[in-house]
Amino acid sequence: MRFLVSNDDGIYADGLIQLAVSLSSLGEVTVVAPDTERSATGHAITMHHPLRVRKVNLPGLKIKAFAVDGTPADCVKLGIDELLDYRPDFVLTGINRGANLGTDVLYSGTVSAAIEGCIMGVPSLAFSLLSAEVMDYSTAGRIAAEVVGMISDKNLTPSTLVNVNIPNVPLEQIKGMKVTRLGHRRYSKNYEKRLDPRGRTYYWLAGELIEEAMASDTDIEAVKNLYVSITPLHFDLTSYKMLDSLKRWGFDHDIRSK
Amino acid sequence: MRFLVSNDDGIYADGLIQLAVSLSSLGEVTVVAPDTERSATGHAITMHHPLRVRKVNLPGLKIKAFAVDGTPADCVKLGIDELLDYRPDFVLTGINRGANLGTDVLYSGTVSAAIEGCIMGVPSLAFSLLSAEVMDYSTAGRIAAEVVGMISDKNLTPSTLVNVNIPNVPLEQIKGMKVTRLGHRRYSKNYEKRLDPRGRTYYWLAGELIEEAMASDTDIEAVKNLYVSITPLHFDLTSYKMLDSLKRWGFDHDIRSK
Repeated sequence: MRFLVSNDDGIYADGLIQLAVSLSSLGEVTVVAPDTERSATGHAITMHHPLRVRKVNLPGLKIKAFAVDGTPADCVKLGIDELLDYRPDFVLTGINRGANLGTDVLYSGTVSAAIEGCIMGVPSLAFSLLSAEVMDYSTAGRIAAEVVGMISDKNLTPSTLVNVNIPNVPLEQIKGMKVTRLGHRRYSKNYEKRLDPRGRTYYWLAGELIEEAMASDTDIEAVKNLYVSITPLHFDLTSYKMLDSLKRWGFDHDIRSK
Repeated sequence: MRFLVSNDDGIYADGLIQLAVSLSSLGEVTVVAPDTERSATGHAITMHHPLRVRKVNLPGLKIKAFAVDGTPADCVKLGIDELLDYRPDFVLTGINRGANLGTDVLYSGTVSAAIEGCIMGVPSLAFSLLSAEVMDYSTAGRIAAEVVGMISDKNLTPSTLVNVNIPNVPLEQIKGMKVTRLGHRRYSKNYEKRLDPRGRTYYWLAGELIEEAMASDTDIEAVKNLYVSITPLHFDLTSYKMLDSLKRWGFDHDIRSK
């Protein structure tokens, strides 16, 4: 198997190195990742300035790696189109520093990079490790390789996209895997208003997570119960449920019939 | 009615001014928009530096307006939480310079700003005018006001999100409105590789749109036939169709049962 590995924490992030190392046991890995941290970039793409690429030696590893001065989605697009010697069997992103759960996946550069993989016609998986004081990526790397191994012989469509969140505990405390749907994450007090030394106002994005009871089939609940959460995602944003309402409301008409 | 108006082309863009003016006939408008162009930012959000806000006088208009040095999603979040005197009935974004059709909505700051409105619990609509040599926003402004007028007395859920694309032709040439689903947009030759004056390589995002026959119920086909395209969107990225496949493939298990 051949992989493209990317992330949004930047090319020297521990989680990316671990993912590249763990996946090397299953096949050939090429890393294409942002030269600096680009988290919370969502599906941003660079149109207004050109992209520069730099070959990078990852410390102690014999893995081909390119640093790009762009977003995670840029890295995947440019990687598949221009930088890789091969067409990858999978795009793998992460291991992200911190969870990508519920509605928050919309903001995630790591998940967006995996979506870009699917748009480019390559099945993709995003991996995230829940935040903790000590970030130990070794268990997550092992689980990432296990998941890719399990999915590799399935007859995947190019639009297959799987979002994997891994509890940050030793392997023996992980209870298993759960197939989940996205839960909801709501925050209160989104911004902190402050004054700078010159008396001018500025706003910091803050946000306290509102802890809510979640259905047991959500990603949020699964990781809380120490399961690895496996969520299938898609990127057709059409709300098929609402098509009929809009038609009923008169949004389907010719001018002549008005 | 009370509105928050934003965009991704920046606070001085013609399309935003037109939207604010056209909607003023239906209610109170406050503009919160990026201080410069932020197109193709997707759902990026600013976490790593604080946001600054500047009150702006829009030329010739008596509309309250704030410029933010952030992304479109930042503007909507900060606007609802901190800047508006009221909780808006609708978040309206655009009128975007250029279409937001098919898969491309994922990259759009204008659509992402509308998604952010829904995440914040406010029904939202995104408006885009197709590219042409002369961008005349007056027809689009009139149609935007018509759409908001039509939808305003419906019993909308906060997660209602409508993506509107308007052909760039005089009003009398528009054939009507069509409720659509997102089509697919594929591009070839995504990047142009060039050399700078110092002989170093750089890559420009380019991409030629592959013209494909599309089903008549897609947004792409509707605007081609000079209809205003009305697409309901959602932001639950869960692929419910794939849940069963993943379970069948063994991704739902306890360690003990392995």
